[in-house]
Amino acid sequence: MNDLFSEGSISNPTLLLDEATCKQNIRRMAEKAKRHDLVFRPHFKTHQSLHIGQWFKAVGVDKITVSSLAMAEYFSEGGWEDITVAFPVNLREIERIRKLASAVRLNLLVESVASVEFLSENLDTPVQVFIKIDSGYHRTGILADDTQKLGAVLGAIERSGILNFSGFLTHAGHSYGARSHKEIAEIHASSTGALKKLKDTYQSQFPGLILSIGDTPTCSVMEDFEGIDEIRPGNFVFYDLVQYAIGACHLDDIAVAMACPVVAKHEERQELIVYGGGVHFSKDQLVLKHGTKPIFGAVADHKEGNWIAGDLTRNYVSKLSQEHGTIKVEKEVFDRYDIGSIIVILPVHSCLTANLMKSYLTLEGNEVDRF
Amino acid sequence: MNDLFSEGSISNPTLLLDEATCKQNIRRMAEKAKRHDLVFRPHFKTHQSLHIGQWFKAVGVDKITVSSLAMAEYFSEGGWEDITVAFPVNLREIERIRKLASAVRLNLLVESVASVEFLSENLDTPVQVFIKIDSGYHRTGILADDTQKLGAVLGAIERSGILNFSGFLTHAGHSYGARSHKEIAEIHASSTGALKKLKDTYQSQFPGLILSIGDTPTCSVMEDFEGIDEIRPGNFVFYDLVQYAIGACHLDDIAVAMACPVVAKHEERQELIVYGGGVHFSKDQLVLKHGTKPIFGAVADHKEGNWIAGDLTRNYVSKLSQEHGTIKVEKEVFDRYDIGSIIVILPVHSCLTANLMKSYLTLEGNEVDRF
Repeated sequence: MNDLFSEGSISNPTLLLDEATCKQNIRRMAEKAKRHDLVFRPHFKTHQSLHIGQWFKAVGVDKITVSSLAMAEYFSEGGWEDITVAFPVNLREIERIRKLASAVRLNLLVESVASVEFLSENLDTPVQVFIKIDSGYHRTGILADDTQKLGAVLGAIERSGILNFSGFLTHAGHSYGARSHKEIAEIHASSTGALKKLKDTYQSQFPGLILSIGDTPTCSVMEDFEGIDEIRPGNFVFYDLVQYAIGACHLDDIAVAMACPVVAKHEERQELIVYGGGVHFSKDQLVLKHGTKPIFGAVADHKEGNWIAGDLTRNYVSKLSQEHGTIKVEKEVFDRYDIGSIIVILPVHSCLTANLMKSYLTLEGNEVDRF
Repeated sequence: MNDLFSEGSISNPTLLLDEATCKQNIRRMAEKAKRHDLVFRPHFKTHQSLHIGQWFKAVGVDKITVSSLAMAEYFSEGGWEDITVAFPVNLREIERIRKLASAVRLNLLVESVASVEFLSENLDTPVQVFIKIDSGYHRTGILADDTQKLGAVLGAIERSGILNFSGFLTHAGHSYGARSHKEIAEIHASSTGALKKLKDTYQSQFPGLILSIGDTPTCSVMEDFEGIDEIRPGNFVFYDLVQYAIGACHLDDIAVAMACPVVAKHEERQELIVYGGGVHFSKDQLVLKHGTKPIFGAVADHKEGNWIAGDLTRNYVSKLSQEHGTIKVEKEVFDRYDIGSIIVILPVHSCLTANLMKSYLTLEGNEVDRF
């Protein structure tokens, strides 16, 4: 990494990718899925890269999850043939859905009779549908105990003649509010419990139905997946400060970091100003345990061709505007950086940072493209 | 606008542009500058569009501000010849600076002897430099009363032989914290007061020095610009909910809005789920007066080919994840939208939303490209 910096090859805010750590994250999750006899259908919305997709292929992954039809098209064109679009089906994109359905094994999410009937009327190739279950996150999905609505949607699927019912899918996104192993375990138990009850109820009617869960915190931490058939974590490929705060990863599992040029120093406030703002990091924020104010990133040290996380509470991004980042640092760190230096910053939310940055630079100096 | 929606031409989150309102915002600010005998050097980081740039040319603008060298290159290639990069000069981009300096009248910001000396050693075409003054925002710049540092930087500029000192520039970004006309006026008075004191001190030594101020709230609201030579507002071209909360605009001055497909309805919570998340809006948030929780956007009604703002406190975006938006609405609004409908949402921060969306759709159905 010293080379990357000292030779001046980085002149703008750049998203660094630690390929070895990233591959380790992928391998660990793949092994966990195998150990528990789970289908591993990783969410690719975090990395959005065909190149990184190959690292998943290398550990046997052939089914993926995405969050938009555009992303599904990108991965379909890159050779992926079994894709779940984990987003309530958008009726206004029916032409794209029709086209994709004829190219790949397409799995869609439904949660209303209206959507099911619209698909039935407008498709001419069969697609698989999951019913999205709200297992406590309360963003989307049918509540697991709303048997009336579930029955109505299942009935509409059966009548359609072109939709194949795959099973029940949930995203326990409320695990992002957890701050301990115990809290993650409680969410996992209630979320998977709700799904398993559904399986008990509907298995005789739909013998092959599968249960699919998705969030990185529970998939990272838990070891009990009894009754679950598929996992769809995404963020674990890179992890980030939010996952660290939840307890879903260690700091040295974080596989991406921003390299930003220092453009000003303000000694009276012990602040470094970097080229790197909301248009690079996103404005996602995090209040650390015992912290009072949100942070927008944390300073890492350079160490032997890699970075190493520092003390998040002492050296951190305190503010972001469109292109500026304000970094609060201790004296020792302040003195270490000059105007023109590169400083490495761990992101709060790697999905949104990667989405803004559009490409990665590995520690070996290779550029990795993405969607 | 009814046409845009009902014909199904919008299938994804789309940034609508009300061209008439946008042009009115431009015209008003241009007239204000003229009335006060100010150079109008608008910041183009908000719209980032050559096409919209033409609307500024039409009212006589020939000098612009941008926030990155890449943006300066884009506008230079589009024919703009006098460009201020309102960001502390990034030494790592010296090759781009050298190239740009030979193509346009380039104005840079400096605030340290180190940066001035680096530019002196590495440039072979003259550039103009402003000294960035911290007039109270405390992000970047030299404090207006730090005569020692000011003297050192001015000395380095004089010694350089290739840097022409243009004057003092500030961005009173703390006006974004204002929530009344009175608070804006106080910030304006102290910020411009600090600059004018500098002019008094240095005018005999640098007779042509100019004072440049930049934020949208003070430029929108104030009428006293005595002693100031140049204004650089940017956000006013579109305005947004933050500017409305500050008191810098009316709701019907907001010239952009997101059109998002409704993908799910949750009656028990009176929530609409739209395709439109943090990757479309950005995660910038706003706590309204008397509000307790942040909002991420506000619902507007469709009305005769345009939108009209609704009650921000009753129908608003309560949560954003990567692709999902959760809209809290009253019963009457809930009932008005079906799955597959388009709902119009005013953005919290138009600069970041426009930055993510990459193009505009005018109410007449024309696509407007940008950087």
